[in-house]
Amino acid sequence: MNIVRGSGGVMFQYELIKKDGNARLGKIITPHGEIETPVFMPVGTQATVKCMTPDELKEIGAKIILGNTYHLYLRPGHELVKEAGGLHSFMNWDGAILTDSGGYQVFSLGDLRKITEEGVTFHSHLDGSVHFISPEKAMEIENALGSDIMMAFDECAPYPCDYDYAKKSMEMTVRWAQRCKDAHQNTEKQALFGIVQGNMYKDLRAACADKLVAMNFPGYAVGGLSVGEPAELMYEMLDFTVPLLPENKPRYNMGVGSPDYLIESVYRGIDMCDCVLPTRIARNGTAMISTGKLVVRNAEYAHDYRPLDLECDCYTCKNYTRAYIRHLVKAGEVLGARLISYHNLYFLVHLMANIREAIREGRFEQFREDFYKKWKK
Amino acid sequence: MNIVRGSGGVMFQYELIKKDGNARLGKIITPHGEIETPVFMPVGTQATVKCMTPDELKEIGAKIILGNTYHLYLRPGHELVKEAGGLHSFMNWDGAILTDSGGYQVFSLGDLRKITEEGVTFHSHLDGSVHFISPEKAMEIENALGSDIMMAFDECAPYPCDYDYAKKSMEMTVRWAQRCKDAHQNTEKQALFGIVQGNMYKDLRAACADKLVAMNFPGYAVGGLSVGEPAELMYEMLDFTVPLLPENKPRYNMGVGSPDYLIESVYRGIDMCDCVLPTRIARNGTAMISTGKLVVRNAEYAHDYRPLDLECDCYTCKNYTRAYIRHLVKAGEVLGARLISYHNLYFLVHLMANIREAIREGRFEQFREDFYKKWKK
Repeated sequence: MNIVRGSGGVMFQYELIKKDGNARLGKIITPHGEIETPVFMPVGTQATVKCMTPDELKEIGAKIILGNTYHLYLRPGHELVKEAGGLHSFMNWDGAILTDSGGYQVFSLGDLRKITEEGVTFHSHLDGSVHFISPEKAMEIENALGSDIMMAFDECAPYPCDYDYAKKSMEMTVRWAQRCKDAHQNTEKQALFGIVQGNMYKDLRAACADKLVAMNFPGYAVGGLSVGEPAELMYEMLDFTVPLLPENKPRYNMGVGSPDYLIESVYRGIDMCDCVLPTRIARNGTAMISTGKLVVRNAEYAHDYRPLDLECDCYTCKNYTRAYIRHLVKAGEVLGARLISYHNLYFLVHLMANIREAIREGRFEQFREDFYKKWKK
Repeated sequence: MNIVRGSGGVMFQYELIKKDGNARLGKIITPHGEIETPVFMPVGTQATVKCMTPDELKEIGAKIILGNTYHLYLRPGHELVKEAGGLHSFMNWDGAILTDSGGYQVFSLGDLRKITEEGVTFHSHLDGSVHFISPEKAMEIENALGSDIMMAFDECAPYPCDYDYAKKSMEMTVRWAQRCKDAHQNTEKQALFGIVQGNMYKDLRAACADKLVAMNFPGYAVGGLSVGEPAELMYEMLDFTVPLLPENKPRYNMGVGSPDYLIESVYRGIDMCDCVLPTRIARNGTAMISTGKLVVRNAEYAHDYRPLDLECDCYTCKNYTRAYIRHLVKAGEVLGARLISYHNLYFLVHLMANIREAIREGRFEQFREDFYKKWKK
């Protein structure tokens, strides 16, 4: 068990309850509630999980969601969010919140940004205005947002990436991690996680993990995965990197959200995952179901009066047919995106709940096998 | 009291409970529930009230919504809706539904349509394909949709309109009303309303009302108003037309949804109103509140941490601030349109509930005065 105490009592705690192979059943305690792990975290980029109310997120069983530092810094501005009482209060969500550091978004800007040791200068995707985010600035923003878990400001190197660049980038990420630690102003209430980089090079991953573990963060992410590499390479990196992380702290695989990625991450000892995938594909008329993907906008569903997922008991599946949802999607009606988003998030949140149950009962390996018997990519 | 019996019992009933001046408190009974009048009916053009679930419509107190014959005929097609068990079943709404006849939409197509005695030939706004709707076809579509209240197929003449055109159009509308009556195939479960036309000419309104009343429809709409004429002229037409309609049947002013129009319609003896206004302006970032209009997207609300309407106890106003909703609207987030749509519909549905209460207590005149003291256009 790992407990981080603030003056007001336990600020952040991770408890490993049970292992089943490398898969872990655990519990994270934050100032905004307990979270059983493994957990899927819906992404609320702009202070809202797209199409959903906070009440609906609770209904589906979400305990922790993501907020996005880069987007909230640009709009409405972290100072406004702070004035509103922090991100929880601003968006009316009293569950836990994890904020990324903005690093990933900034690096995704390509030609619109310039990286130096000091930090990153970039042009806003909204209006072209010039901004600068350093590790210190990222901490200032995340402190203002008041998330329960903050991510360190890192460089997410691209894939593919030559060894020299990956090495320099990783070393800078380590120095930035220390600067984040030093700059973090609200250690009483917000837990800062380190991010292991090193691209697809094992020695770099090992060196990075080694240094970050020595800095004693309350949790660790494996960053720089799911950036375009083949699934097998991602799994190989997880196989190598996760065992380097302390067992008594939570591990987070950033940016993965397809059902197979969740299962394979948990299989390798990961506790937390997040992704925009379930809400993004929903807006495009695609549902995640127990047999794979259902592109409900396709003509074959025009007269299909069954629910999206025959095995699901979510609000959408209990009340609406494929034919109706297809009509909504084709007609560009918001309710279509709403109903599929609700289902897709429910699907992933409940997939993780079922995984936890399987680990608790020591049958995760069997669960994984059974899943792939039904589910096709 | 006016009762229309089918073989299965009461199919449609209107009961006038109390008058207060010309304002009427009443009750409509349909196969899908009782509706107290005066009532505001949210519009679900494409088998969905934009941004809302049926459960949310119930939550705000809506008992009857509109479906749109023209849109549903084109997409997904009335035969598909019929195959799905009718519009109630297709969209998962077990309250009452009123369908318009498609006339208004077809006539709004301008150059894309051609009117003859037989019916209207028009080009679809979706794909340009050519279609023909006659009174008989409108009845076929509305019968397939299975609405509780069907509107007759009429011509809604434009404003301004010369006397000769208005006269010919009104006379054709009367002939079409008879053809609708003759073609209506489900008189056991669906009540067909007549629509009084005649543009802004009192003698034409009188002639139309006279003929339609003789046809003994279970309810009547005043059509062809709110088409661009000044408010005073609309009120003058209501003042003249409504008293020509039978007291024991409901009266419906089509397409009005601003708070003052609702109050003034009720003041003149109208029982039912509908409009897309509350959901349309919501999507544009505008809320209807007790003091008038709140353009929440405006910069002045960026730091305003009060609810949209200080006097409202709806879900939106109990949980979200103007600053947050403004952020959502500016960021193009669906939740912004959702929260404002919810509030605006709640506002109008509850305005009508308050009006009913005032009529019940014989103080509607006072209510109307008090309303305008706070509310500014």
